[in-house]
Amino acid sequence: MMGNILGERLVLMSFGESHGKCIGMVLDGCPAGLPLSESDLQTQLNRRKPGQSIITTQRKEEDRAEILSGVFNGFTTSAPICALIWNKDQDSRPYDAMKNTPRPGHADFPASMKYGGFEDYRGSGRFSGRLTATMVMAGAIAQKLLFYSLSVEVVAYTSEIGGIVSKPVTFKQAKTNTYLNEVRCPDVDSAERMKSLILQARKQGDSVGGIIECIATGLPVGLGEPIFSSMESDLSKALFSIPAVKGVEFGSGFGGSRLKGSENNDEYIVSNGKIVTTTNNSGGIIGGLTSGMPLVIRIGFKPASSIAKKQRSVNLLTRSECEITVPGRHDPCVVPRAPPVVESLVSLIISDHAIRGGFIPPILKARKND
Amino acid sequence: MMGNILGERLVLMSFGESHGKCIGMVLDGCPAGLPLSESDLQTQLNRRKPGQSIITTQRKEEDRAEILSGVFNGFTTSAPICALIWNKDQDSRPYDAMKNTPRPGHADFPASMKYGGFEDYRGSGRFSGRLTATMVMAGAIAQKLLFYSLSVEVVAYTSEIGGIVSKPVTFKQAKTNTYLNEVRCPDVDSAERMKSLILQARKQGDSVGGIIECIATGLPVGLGEPIFSSMESDLSKALFSIPAVKGVEFGSGFGGSRLKGSENNDEYIVSNGKIVTTTNNSGGIIGGLTSGMPLVIRIGFKPASSIAKKQRSVNLLTRSECEITVPGRHDPCVVPRAPPVVESLVSLIISDHAIRGGFIPPILKARKND
Amino acid sequence: MMGNILGERLVLMSFGESHGKCIGMVLDGCPAGLPLSESDLQTQLNRRKPGQSIITTQRKEEDRAEILSGVFNGFTTSAPICALIWNKDQDSRPYDAMKNTPRPGHADFPASMKYGGFEDYRGSGRFSGRLTATMVMAGAIAQKLLFYSLSVEVVAYTSEIGGIVSKPVTFKQAKTNTYLNEVRCPDVDSAERMKSLILQARKQGDSVGGIIECIATGLPVGLGEPIFSSMESDLSKALFSIPAVKGVEFGSGFGGSRLKGSENNDEYIVSNGKIVTTTNNSGGIIGGLTSGMPLVIRIGFKPASSIAKKQRSVNLLTRSECEITVPGRHDPCVVPRAPPVVESLVSLIISDHAIRGGFIPPILKARKND
Amino acid sequence: MMGNILGERLVLMSFGESHGKCIGMVLDGCPAGLPLSESDLQTQLNRRKPGQSIITTQRKEEDRAEILSGVFNGFTTSAPICALIWNKDQDSRPYDAMKNTPRPGHADFPASMKYGGFEDYRGSGRFSGRLTATMVMAGAIAQKLLFYSLSVEVVAYTSEIGGIVSKPVTFKQAKTNTYLNEVRCPDVDSAERMKSLILQARKQGDSVGGIIECIATGLPVGLGEPIFSSMESDLSKALFSIPAVKGVEFGSGFGGSRLKGSENNDEYIVSNGKIVTTTNNSGGIIGGLTSGMPLVIRIGFKPASSIAKKQRSVNLLTRSECEITVPGRHDPCVVPRAPPVVESLVSLIISDHAIRGGFIPPILKARKND
Repeated sequence: MMGNILGERLVLMSFGESHGKCIGMVLDGCPAGLPLSESDLQTQLNRRKPGQSIITTQRKEEDRAEILSGVFNGFTTSAPICALIWNKDQDSRPYDAMKNTPRPGHADFPASMKYGGFEDYRGSGRFSGRLTATMVMAGAIAQKLLFYSLSVEVVAYTSEIGGIVSKPVTFKQAKTNTYLNEVRCPDVDSAERMKSLILQARKQGDSVGGIIECIATGLPVGLGEPIFSSMESDLSKALFSIPAVKGVEFGSGFGGSRLKGSENNDEYIVSNGKIVTTTNNSGGIIGGLTSGMPLVIRIGFKPASSIAKKQRSVNLLTRSECEITVPGRHDPCVVPRAPPVVESLVSLIISDHAIRGGFIPPILKARKND
Repeated sequence: MMGNILGERLVLMSFGESHGKCIGMVLDGCPAGLPLSESDLQTQLNRRKPGQSIITTQRKEEDRAEILSGVFNGFTTSAPICALIWNKDQDSRPYDAMKNTPRPGHADFPASMKYGGFEDYRGSGRFSGRLTATMVMAGAIAQKLLFYSLSVEVVAYTSEIGGIVSKPVTFKQAKTNTYLNEVRCPDVDSAERMKSLILQARKQGDSVGGIIECIATGLPVGLGEPIFSSMESDLSKALFSIPAVKGVEFGSGFGGSRLKGSENNDEYIVSNGKIVTTTNNSGGIIGGLTSGMPLVIRIGFKPASSIAKKQRSVNLLTRSECEITVPGRHDPCVVPRAPPVVESLVSLIISDHAIRGGFIPPILKARKND
Repeated sequence: MMGNILGERLVLMSFGESHGKCIGMVLDGCPAGLPLSESDLQTQLNRRKPGQSIITTQRKEEDRAEILSGVFNGFTTSAPICALIWNKDQDSRPYDAMKNTPRPGHADFPASMKYGGFEDYRGSGRFSGRLTATMVMAGAIAQKLLFYSLSVEVVAYTSEIGGIVSKPVTFKQAKTNTYLNEVRCPDVDSAERMKSLILQARKQGDSVGGIIECIATGLPVGLGEPIFSSMESDLSKALFSIPAVKGVEFGSGFGGSRLKGSENNDEYIVSNGKIVTTTNNSGGIIGGLTSGMPLVIRIGFKPASSIAKKQRSVNLLTRSECEITVPGRHDPCVVPRAPPVVESLVSLIISDHAIRGGFIPPILKARKND
Repeated sequence: MMGNILGERLVLMSFGESHGKCIGMVLDGCPAGLPLSESDLQTQLNRRKPGQSIITTQRKEEDRAEILSGVFNGFTTSAPICALIWNKDQDSRPYDAMKNTPRPGHADFPASMKYGGFEDYRGSGRFSGRLTATMVMAGAIAQKLLFYSLSVEVVAYTSEIGGIVSKPVTFKQAKTNTYLNEVRCPDVDSAERMKSLILQARKQGDSVGGIIECIATGLPVGLGEPIFSSMESDLSKALFSIPAVKGVEFGSGFGGSRLKGSENNDEYIVSNGKIVTTTNNSGGIIGGLTSGMPLVIRIGFKPASSIAKKQRSVNLLTRSECEITVPGRHDPCVVPRAPPVVESLVSLIISDHAIRGGFIPPILKARKND
C-alpha cells in the first residue's frame, strides 16, 4: 500500500493539498448502524481549527466538514465514508518565491528531491499541518464508534510547552478541563504560563514545542496483534504521521529505562472483582496487548519550523547559499491545536484493533432513542 | 494482514515459539543477485545470542541459522527466503506451574485473555525475547543488501543503562567499538560502570533498563512515503515490536520539545558540493522523508520483567491474590543483546523504503570478485 | 484492507453510492510528472455513459469528472488523485417500495442480510453498475500512464452478445473501429445483428448478456508476481469486481482445456531479433508472467438482472412469497457500456505491476511539447 | 505485499522450491482452539501426491507434512502455523542442460528475463506444480476450520478431461465418489473413458487438459467485501495462482452470457422457512456476496506443458532457434491431482471471508469429545 493509507480493518485514506481545491478523507470499514452526522466531525474540527485565539495562526479557515458518502438516513452503512473540507483563505503567492530555497525544518528539500519539482509546494502541499484536519474527520467517527459500542473514552491534552510542565492531572480533570483554555492544558495555572511563553516566542519571531499526553479508558483486555502490530507499534506509526512529532513513549517510557524492574513492574491485584495492576508503568500495554488499564501515551512535538527569524538556506537551482525569511501567518506553537489530532489517531488505531479482535461487530444494534 | 508480517515490499513473516520446535522467518521481496550464505545471518545472531558473558542469561542457545529457501548457487533468487533456528536447551517445566499466575511485566495476563488459554505459554511462547532472533536473521539480509547496493551502514549501540549515560560517540567510534565489550557501549569507561550496575542488579535479584542509539549513514534523500508511511512511522512501528521497548525518539526528540524553533531548525549549507544541514536535530528525517543526513534514533528499553524478587499476582482460575517468584535463568538487562536487533529492524525498514522508492533495483548486478 | 481498495502500488479506493451525493475515487501511487487533465477522464467516461443510443438506458447522466487533488500545473504530483462525479437525474422513489422484496439477480437479498438494513438501497447503492464510472476515472489515468511511459495500448470490445459471435478482429481493427458503433463491436455486420437482438430483448421486457474481449500490446516481459499475484490472479480479481461478470479466461482459456499439449503450447522463435511465440494460446501470460506477446482476455457478462417481466420474490419482513416487477429505466444489455470499464481495470493492473516491477519510475521525465 | 502472500485475515505465505531443501508455508490468522495434527494435512496431501497410479507422474514424492509451529497440545494457538515438506527424489541434472532453452508453456522464458538468471530453475523452481502442495497444507487447515466452526463443506472433482464431459453429479455424489477413482471423477463411466484418454495421450508423448468443478455448501449469507473483494474476485485470484489454470467461471458462467435475463435470473422462494432461489445460475454469489445457495465454480486447466514431443525453442544466450525435447517424468494430465488443490484454495478464501465477516470467532470453543 502507498503511504496515504492507515489501518487494516478501519482504513483511512487521505487526499488533498493545503492550497488545492480541498482536503479530504475516505474511511472504509466503519461498521453499519452508527448514528453519524456532519456535526460529529465538526465538533472535533472546531477544536483544531486555527484563528481561535491570539496564540494560534490568524489564518481564518472555516474548516467545514461535508460528508459525501457512506451515511444514509443518519446512520453509517458500512460503505466508505468520504468527507472533505473545501479550501478557502489561501494566499499562495509567497510560496512561488520560496520554492527553490527550502525552509529549514520543513519538508521542502527532500520533497523537491523526491518528486522532481512536480509536488504542489503551495502552503507545504501534502506536508502541511493542515492535512491533520483529514485525520480529525476520520478520528471523530472512530471516537464516536468507540464510545457508542464499547464506552471507550479518549482524551488528549497539553502536558508541557517550552519546558513548562503541567501538574499531573486525572483522566476526569483532563476530560473536563482540556478544552476550557486556549492552550488545552487542564492545569489552569500552567496553562497561563504556557500562554505567556507562546506569546513571548511569537514576539521574538520564534516558536516553541511541547508534549501532549493521551489517555484512553475502558479498553478491553487483549487488543493488539503481536509481533508487528503490537499496540505500541500501530499507535506510534499513526502518531508519527503528525508533522512535528519526534518522540513517542508509553507509560513510564524513557523514564522507565532508569528504573529497576522491581520498581517498574506493575503487580496484579483484584479490585472490585476485576484483575488490575497496582501501578500503570506499562501505560496499559503489556507484551503489545492492552491490559485493561488506561492507555497512557506521551507525544513530543518539536517547535514549529516556520519562524520569522532569518535562516540560512541554499538555492536548489544555483546551489548557492542564501538567507531566507519565511513569510506567512504561522503558529508560534502547534501543540495547542494537536489534542484533537492525537485523540483522532489514537481512536482510529483502537477502533481498528477492536474490529480486528471481534470486539466491535459488523453491524451495531441501533440503540433506542438514538 | 495479521500481526506477524512487517513491511510492504521487503516483507518479513515471523513464526515459531520460544519452546516449540523452532523459531523462523520468511523474507519476501529481497532482490535477486545478492550474495548470501548462512554465515551472513550467523554473524549477527552471534552478537545477540545469550550465554556470552556473565551479564546475560546463562541459557546456552546455539542459535544456528539454517536457510531453507530463496538462495541458489550463493545468490538470492528473489524467491522468499526462509531461515530457521531449531530450539534446544529448553526447560519448560517451570511454566506449567506458573501458567495461571501471570508474571508482572510479561504478556501472560492479556495473552491468556486474548487466546483463551490455547496460547503456548512455555518460555513466553510468541512473546519471548527469543523471537527477536527471527528479526536478526531477516535484518542481517537487509543490512547486507543496503551495504551491497547503496553503501548504507547501520550501527546500534548502548547509550545508557540504569541511568548511566555514555559519552557521545561518533559514528566511526560506534562502528569500531560497539561489539568490543559485553555491554555494547562504544565508550569504554561507561561500559565498565554499566557492567558493574548490571551485576549488582543481578545480585539483588533485580533488573535494569537502558537506551539504545542507532545511526544509519549513506541514505539517499527522499526515502519515506508520507503521510502514513513516514520514516518515523515505519521505523517506530518496527522498533516497538521489540519486547521491552517503551519509547522511541528521532534526532533531538523529546529534548527538542524544550528548544526554540530557532535552536532546533537545521539550516542548509553547501558542503563539498552537497546540500547538508549545519546541525542534525531532525535525526535525518524531515517531513517524514530522509534528508540525506545520518539517521539518528533513540530507543528506550524498560528493565527486564523477569526478576528474582517476590511479586504480587492473581490466580486466573480462582481470582485470588498470591505471591510468585519467577524461576528460570534470565537477563538482568536485555539492552546489551539488543543492538543487533535494532540494527536489523532499522535495516529492514530502510531497505523496504529504498525498494519502494526505486533506489534498489529488482536485480542486483553481481559485482566482480564477490 | 477492506473491499473498496484495489492494487498494491497503484491503489484505487472507490466511494459513493448510486443515488447519493456523488461517486468518486482516490488513486494513490501515480508517479509524478504525468500530464493530466479532467478531459483525459472525460473521454473514457463519455464512452461508458448511458443515454447515448436507443440500446442503452435512457437515463441522462452527464457524468462530468472533477479532479479534486493530486494534479498541479497540469501534471500529476504523486499525491493521491481524487476525482468525483456529482450525481444527478436520480429517481429514488421506486426503491423505497421495493426494499423488502429483493430483485432476482441483484445484490438486494445478501446485502440486506449483511448490512442489517442500514445499506443505501437506492439505485442498488454501492452495488450499482454506476460505480464502474469510478473505475473508469482511475483507469483513464492508468491507461494514459501506460501509453505515456511504456507505449502500452489496451483495447476492449464486444465479441459476443446473446449468442451472436463477432468475426475475429485484429488489434488494429479493434483499436480503430470499436467505438464507431453503439454496440462497441469492431465487426460491423455482427454489430448490426447484435443491435437488433438487444432491441428485440428490450421489446420483450427481457435482457441479454455477452462477452468482452480485451487485448493489450507492448507489455514488457516479466510483469507479475507469482505465486499469488500472477497476472491472471490480479487481472481476474479486478475484472470480477465488475457487476455482471461471471467468467474470465485467458488466451485459449476453457477451449484450451480440450486441446492437446502439443496443440496448445506456444513454441518460441526469433522474429525481428525478438523472442516471440508462433501462437498465443497463453494469452500473453506464462507462469503468471507476461511473455511479451499480446495479453488476451475474455470476460463473460450475464444478461442484465433488471428486466420488465414479472418475477418471483419473497418479502423479507413477512417471509411470504410474492411477485414483483422491477420499475425504472434499465439497460437491456450492459455489454456495450463495458469496454471502457474493462480497459480501465486491465490498465490499472498492468500499471500496478509495471510500477512493482520497476518498469515505470517514480518520476516521469516530462517529454518535450507535452 | 509481495506475490507470495494470499489472504487478508487468514494469510498464507508460501516458500520453497521444487528441487530445494523443502517446500513450506506459514498460515497466519487461524483462530485459537482448532484441534489440529499433521494427519489433517497428510490426508489431503496424499490425495494430491504423484506416483499413485499409472496416469500420473511416476516420481515418488512422499510429501510428508511436518508442523513446526502454531500448534500446542493438539490445538491451534492463533500463532502462525508453519508446515513443510522436505524434498526428496529429485533429479536436477536435466535442468542444467535446458536452462537456456525455455520449454514452451513453462515459465522459463519470462522468469529468466525477470530474475536475470538468478532464479532456481531446477524442476521449475518456484513455478513448479509441486508448490501446490503448500497450498494443500494450508487449505487442509482451512477446510477443517470451516467444517468445525460452520459445517461448511467443500468438494472439488474432475468434470471434464480432453473433451470428455462427465454427467452432472450431485454434491452428495461428489462428496462420496470423487476420490474412489484415479481420475477423481464421481461419474464412474466418464472416469473410465477419461483414464483411457490420458493413457493414450501419454503413449503419444502428449498431454490433455480438463475442467474441475468445485461446490461448497453451508455458507452463511453475506460473505464477500464488494467492490474489489467480491467472492468471485478473491476466489478467482486464488484459483488462477494454480499453474495451468486459464479460465474460471461461476454458476452459469460463460454459458450464462448466452441466456436471457428471464432465464438466468434466480427467483426467490421460501423453502423450509429459508429464503432460497429456485435455480442457482449465480453459483451462489450475487453482487459479489454469498447468497446461501451452494457455491459453484468451474476451473479450466490447460493441457500439461511438459510433453515428450519435440518442440521449437530459442537459445537465450545465442538467440538462435533450436528444437528441444523435455526430459523427466511428467503428468500427461494434471487435472486428477488438482481437486485437493482447488478445495484448499476455495477453503482458504471462504475462511478468510468468514473471519472478516465475523462468522468465525478469534477463539473456537473446544467441543467435547474432539
